[in-house]
Amino acid sequence: MKIRFGLAAFIEEGYSVAVVGSLSALGSWNPDGSLPLHPVIPPKAKEPSFWTCDVDLFGEGLPERFQYKFVRHGPAGRGIDEKGEGDIVPQWEWEGCGEGHNRTWEYQQDNIQGGVHCNPVARWQDKAGETSEFDLTTRFFFYLSDNQLFHYSEILDNVWLGSCPRTAQHITKDMKQVMGTTAVMNFQMDYDLLNNSADCCPPASDVPRYIYEIYRHYGISYVWMPTVDMSTEGRIKLLPQAVYVLHGLLRSGHNVYVHCNAGIGRSVAVVCGYLMYVLGWSFRKMQYYVCSRRPVSYIDEVALKAAEKDFAAKFGRLPVEYRTRSERHSAAVI
Amino acid sequence: MKIRFGLAAFIEEGYSVAVVGSLSALGSWNPDGSLPLHPVIPPKAKEPSFWTCDVDLFGEGLPERFQYKFVRHGPAGRGIDEKGEGDIVPQWEWEGCGEGHNRTWEYQQDNIQGGVHCNPVARWQDKAGETSEFDLTTRFFFYLSDNQLFHYSEILDNVWLGSCPRTAQHITKDMKQVMGTTAVMNFQMDYDLLNNSADCCPPASDVPRYIYEIYRHYGISYVWMPTVDMSTEGRIKLLPQAVYVLHGLLRSGHNVYVHCNAGIGRSVAVVCGYLMYVLGWSFRKMQYYVCSRRPVSYIDEVALKAAEKDFAAKFGRLPVEYRTRSERHSAAVI
Repeated sequence: MKIRFGLAAFIEEGYSVAVVGSLSALGSWNPDGSLPLHPVIPPKAKEPSFWTCDVDLFGEGLPERFQYKFVRHGPAGRGIDEKGEGDIVPQWEWEGCGEGHNRTWEYQQDNIQGGVHCNPVARWQDKAGETSEFDLTTRFFFYLSDNQLFHYSEILDNVWLGSCPRTAQHITKDMKQVMGTTAVMNFQMDYDLLNNSADCCPPASDVPRYIYEIYRHYGISYVWMPTVDMSTEGRIKLLPQAVYVLHGLLRSGHNVYVHCNAGIGRSVAVVCGYLMYVLGWSFRKMQYYVCSRRPVSYIDEVALKAAEKDFAAKFGRLPVEYRTRSERHSAAVI
Repeated sequence: MKIRFGLAAFIEEGYSVAVVGSLSALGSWNPDGSLPLHPVIPPKAKEPSFWTCDVDLFGEGLPERFQYKFVRHGPAGRGIDEKGEGDIVPQWEWEGCGEGHNRTWEYQQDNIQGGVHCNPVARWQDKAGETSEFDLTTRFFFYLSDNQLFHYSEILDNVWLGSCPRTAQHITKDMKQVMGTTAVMNFQMDYDLLNNSADCCPPASDVPRYIYEIYRHYGISYVWMPTVDMSTEGRIKLLPQAVYVLHGLLRSGHNVYVHCNAGIGRSVAVVCGYLMYVLGWSFRKMQYYVCSRRPVSYIDEVALKAAEKDFAAKFGRLPVEYRTRSERHSAAVI
């Protein structure tokens, strides 16, 4: 059985990442012996990338737990090594700020997926050892906001996930023509709409109302469930009914675009909840799947696990015949 | 075939109502020849009552349209007739302020229900001819508010409809013991919760959060979908997804208490939507049914009809096997 390492992080173009650790197979803490990760979603300016590698470590000599950490290095010829001998060895940069930020591996049955022990997907730790949602969200959010960008990812063949439309063209072109959207689920608050989607509407219009009218005009069903941002508590409260509504839209054949402001937090939670609560995927399976399609996702494990029981209590286990064409399809291709 | 007249109105105890109109069978505008309505839900202090009567008018001589109006009179012996001869004839009081407020009957296929032509359920018109929702709502709301009352009605054997809990006992006693509630749907805004349900919580607590905790403690699933009050537009936006969530709760076996502030507008809309969109009842059938169980209901015809297409577009026609035990039961007894 293999062990899978996963990392979703802002990594500059040209740079690469590797895993290094206390085991000899992981370089015995020497970055020169580290194992490279492969970019499932390669680095792109201003966007997070997603990296994995599978290593055969099981067998004699694998301790009950070991420690590891991620390192990154720049393009060959541009680094300076620790001895000051420039342009010879790539410069390794360690995540976190020392032993206190090492990661610990241990066997967990829940992590087994398709015969591979999948470690939790890691976020790169900065110099202070932080991997805060706030930093991730604001960085990507302002990148989109400053450039009036619309950024979305196909999660299943009828579930797309991303940022809010910022101009009418994002609806008429991206949604209608590229994604083939027939229904939208929006979790922005009213002030989110005013701050981010006003350019979809004529000046001085009532933005939330006008957005309704645009969707109606283009024959797109629209579900607006305003939810406070950056709040695990808010997501716990939202998740069960939002997932059930998403399920209902998919059940009746819709191609759904799910969004909040930046497509990082609230909307991600609902799509992840759908994969877990309705399709029955484990948290770990869902995490690798979603990161491989939208690395910028902030997957709120606490909210998703807390709301799972509530979903089951409210709506029960949904029978298999509820599953959509897409659900059956995606189950086959993963 | 008969014609059914229906009236839902605040009528004082001891008073009764009748229908009078241009046809000779309706007294030729003479209240002494009016046809009495029967109280399906009799008058009660501070609460609306619901009245109907079925009249055999079809046949030769029934014009394509005729006019009618409701009248009420006080208990015998307490009125004064128009000639000033007190205590002899009951005093008739007409609704509205003259011919301009007459009601017009005409045949409408949509009104046929069980072989009876059911006219739209009327609201008593005051001296100005008004039947405003605002007046109805505020009058009943303040009656509940001033007396810290909890007021609810059984609509189906697993759907209850009413006002917000105002004390912890309304949850622990009324919901748990009387109604057997296992799930609550609440459409109050956060300020509605603060203004009306704060006495359910310890002083100075975070009311919306504490309400969650109470329900969790008592094992009641809780769906909170804040919706602005007194707004047809708000209801149109809310209805499809709220009805779908209610359907999901019922499908999985819940006994649901649906409420807003007073159980007149927002919550009524959602339950009415369920009867129409999921059970497939006509508007008219639903209107008579709901009025006979909760006369204080403000049934927002515009919102319910506007959202019906949206519900169908979003969630399709729900297959029969989705129907709950209660739905099958209620279909049999109506």
